[in-house]
Amino acid sequence: MILIENSKFLRGNELKEGNILIEGNKIVAIGDTKDKSDIVIDAKGLVAIPGLFNCHTHSAMTLFRGYAEDMPLQEWLEKKIWPAEMRLNEKIVYLASKLACVEMLKTGTVFFNDMYFFPSATAKAVEETGIRACLSSAFFDFYNSDILEANMKRVEKELKELKSFRVLRAIAPHAVYTVSIEGLRRSVEVAEREDIFIHFHLAETEKEVVEFKKRHGKGIVKTLDEIGFLSSRLFCAHSVWLEKDEIALLGKKGSSVIHCPTSNMKLSVGKTMNYPEMKRCNVNVLLGTDGAASNNSLNMFSEMKFCALLQKFYYGADSFKAVEAFRIATENAGRAFRIKSGRIEEGWLADIVLVDLGEAGFVPCHDLIANLVYSTATVDTVIVDGKIVVENRYFEGEEELVEEFSKEVEKFFT
Amino acid sequence: MILIENSKFLRGNELKEGNILIEGNKIVAIGDTKDKSDIVIDAKGLVAIPGLFNCHTHSAMTLFRGYAEDMPLQEWLEKKIWPAEMRLNEKIVYLASKLACVEMLKTGTVFFNDMYFFPSATAKAVEETGIRACLSSAFFDFYNSDILEANMKRVEKELKELKSFRVLRAIAPHAVYTVSIEGLRRSVEVAEREDIFIHFHLAETEKEVVEFKKRHGKGIVKTLDEIGFLSSRLFCAHSVWLEKDEIALLGKKGSSVIHCPTSNMKLSVGKTMNYPEMKRCNVNVLLGTDGAASNNSLNMFSEMKFCALLQKFYYGADSFKAVEAFRIATENAGRAFRIKSGRIEEGWLADIVLVDLGEAGFVPCHDLIANLVYSTATVDTVIVDGKIVVENRYFEGEEELVEEFSKEVEKFFT
Repeated sequence: MILIENSKFLRGNELKEGNILIEGNKIVAIGDTKDKSDIVIDAKGLVAIPGLFNCHTHSAMTLFRGYAEDMPLQEWLEKKIWPAEMRLNEKIVYLASKLACVEMLKTGTVFFNDMYFFPSATAKAVEETGIRACLSSAFFDFYNSDILEANMKRVEKELKELKSFRVLRAIAPHAVYTVSIEGLRRSVEVAEREDIFIHFHLAETEKEVVEFKKRHGKGIVKTLDEIGFLSSRLFCAHSVWLEKDEIALLGKKGSSVIHCPTSNMKLSVGKTMNYPEMKRCNVNVLLGTDGAASNNSLNMFSEMKFCALLQKFYYGADSFKAVEAFRIATENAGRAFRIKSGRIEEGWLADIVLVDLGEAGFVPCHDLIANLVYSTATVDTVIVDGKIVVENRYFEGEEELVEEFSKEVEKFFT
Repeated sequence: MILIENSKFLRGNELKEGNILIEGNKIVAIGDTKDKSDIVIDAKGLVAIPGLFNCHTHSAMTLFRGYAEDMPLQEWLEKKIWPAEMRLNEKIVYLASKLACVEMLKTGTVFFNDMYFFPSATAKAVEETGIRACLSSAFFDFYNSDILEANMKRVEKELKELKSFRVLRAIAPHAVYTVSIEGLRRSVEVAEREDIFIHFHLAETEKEVVEFKKRHGKGIVKTLDEIGFLSSRLFCAHSVWLEKDEIALLGKKGSSVIHCPTSNMKLSVGKTMNYPEMKRCNVNVLLGTDGAASNNSLNMFSEMKFCALLQKFYYGADSFKAVEAFRIATENAGRAFRIKSGRIEEGWLADIVLVDLGEAGFVPCHDLIANLVYSTATVDTVIVDGKIVVENRYFEGEEELVEEFSKEVEKFFT
């Protein structure tokens, strides 16, 4: 049992004061509870908030942080990232993912939705660091049926092996410009049979949308609908270049889209996601950093700021409120992934972040949510699944991990 | 004397390794120097970079951090900020500025260019915290000659009193929609007589530009030129809604413009500063956070990221490089303010920031400048004018300051 004492905490949008009692992996009582606990955290000067969800990333791409700068998306992928990715191995993915987990935990993220290769290596990193994740087996087929068959075999094998603690599973056909319609159809089959999620890149650039229409004679989302791809198990990253009827269709089918504003700006995709229309159509919008190669950070506090500000810049200062950024980064994500995380409530998972209220950059606190989204939040303590994983701003084992990873990085690039 | 040992450091764009020797307020030797020093900093695992310049802020507006959210500029000013500012006093400005100084120092900023009321109160904060600043006496006249006369008296008095250590001075006519042409002309007189800078808001919104033309029958910059307002002593914040000929004129006259991307996005000014054209016309572009009420942070690392990404988003992924963001936040600013700060060089001022290379979010370091601009830089040590002001991430006296300020904030708002 853990007792968080003297804490301010966020319940819904309201700031309350009291204690939080954790038993096992759940919040069991809130308020003036004072049970005998093994561990007591004195949270004076801190505020407890639900942990953040990073809903689209490629965690092991920390390996490529700063590796290929100042290039547009296609060139960046084809000239730098893909050739380097050919040389990936399990060990480097494990270490790079683990580093990502530590970065995320130290910045208040308790869950990430990942798309990458060697998912079992990432699962090991998840297990060891204490974070939650939805991990996926990713594939391309480049419109070649032999490649598709080979990949489906690998994917099915990887998914079978991927039964790990605190890990949800997804299949991840990369995008329509790298995966055939048949590949997408097969992904739905696997997802339904295994009852897992689908993680996908959708309409990131204009080129993708235009070339799809040229090739298939109709729009992407309509085509996806025809093959049964759209459902509440689908998570579409980016979703920038969508028409209104496509957005409406995503809303109707209950699919989630993941806004990645920082990556979109950095890779200059030419447009921002149409959040007002998504909202009008009841599309479940979530938030992600994308990989560290195109951000170059996995800090969800920064991502919330970019999200709110990019929307304000496009649609007006009153178009997007801080609380919306916070909600899409917490409870909306929990709901979409079907886990009771993202709120501080009795009976919910104990995924709690304690933020320092006394840092100069966080004072005064007229509006806690505005401070969390726009100012610099300093994370003091992180609890995931009822276990303390960051304490006093410190993650145990970070130095050793950084040292080991740095050595492997040097090997990888020489 | 201070010896920084075993440090990596940034010399120009190159990463070097060695020691840095500081004597008095200057860097006196770099390389394998090993003098006997009173203070030795073991900088293993850290990298020394020049301190950052925040070239447009209203430091005491930390008082209004999160106080008025989700409003467009005019409404925000008229309904919330200006009425509250009527009640300002010297004590609250001193404490709010001091808090801002601590926030800036802890995030690697060694200099800020301020525009606000009670500049002597801010000077006291500067003196006590050890940061550098250009402080200004700000005024509005609302096109009323009586108000102008009263304000000019106040301004001249304030400027006389404002002779403080590490403080440069400026006169700050607020903007063309709040200050008459006569008020601007008088500002130039004062600036030339006192040999000080001019700090000014220029072309922040379309409304400002359109209404000026309606009122005066010509554009803002041309009018400013006719009254001798444009020179290298002029610092224009925002400068978003400018025509190409106006940008050219600013370049010709050697004036500086200060890009404030975060504030521009948050207040939804409708456009981004045209950096490519500024560059073509050799305008000296600098970078600022604006006040904490419209950002809501004074973190220049975050500002560099917003700057680079907003430019990339508008003008293409290869249009703006990380190193440009870094340069406009360091040496370009030092040059414009005529002080030898912003580079790590022998004979230059010892304004040095040590950043932690071992944080998970900063690893690997394929490209130090990209990491500094896009990833999360953790500041370990800050030296300003040869004095250590932040050590081991800690600013002495921060808790007490936060406590005192918080009490005053409560009084101010009740």
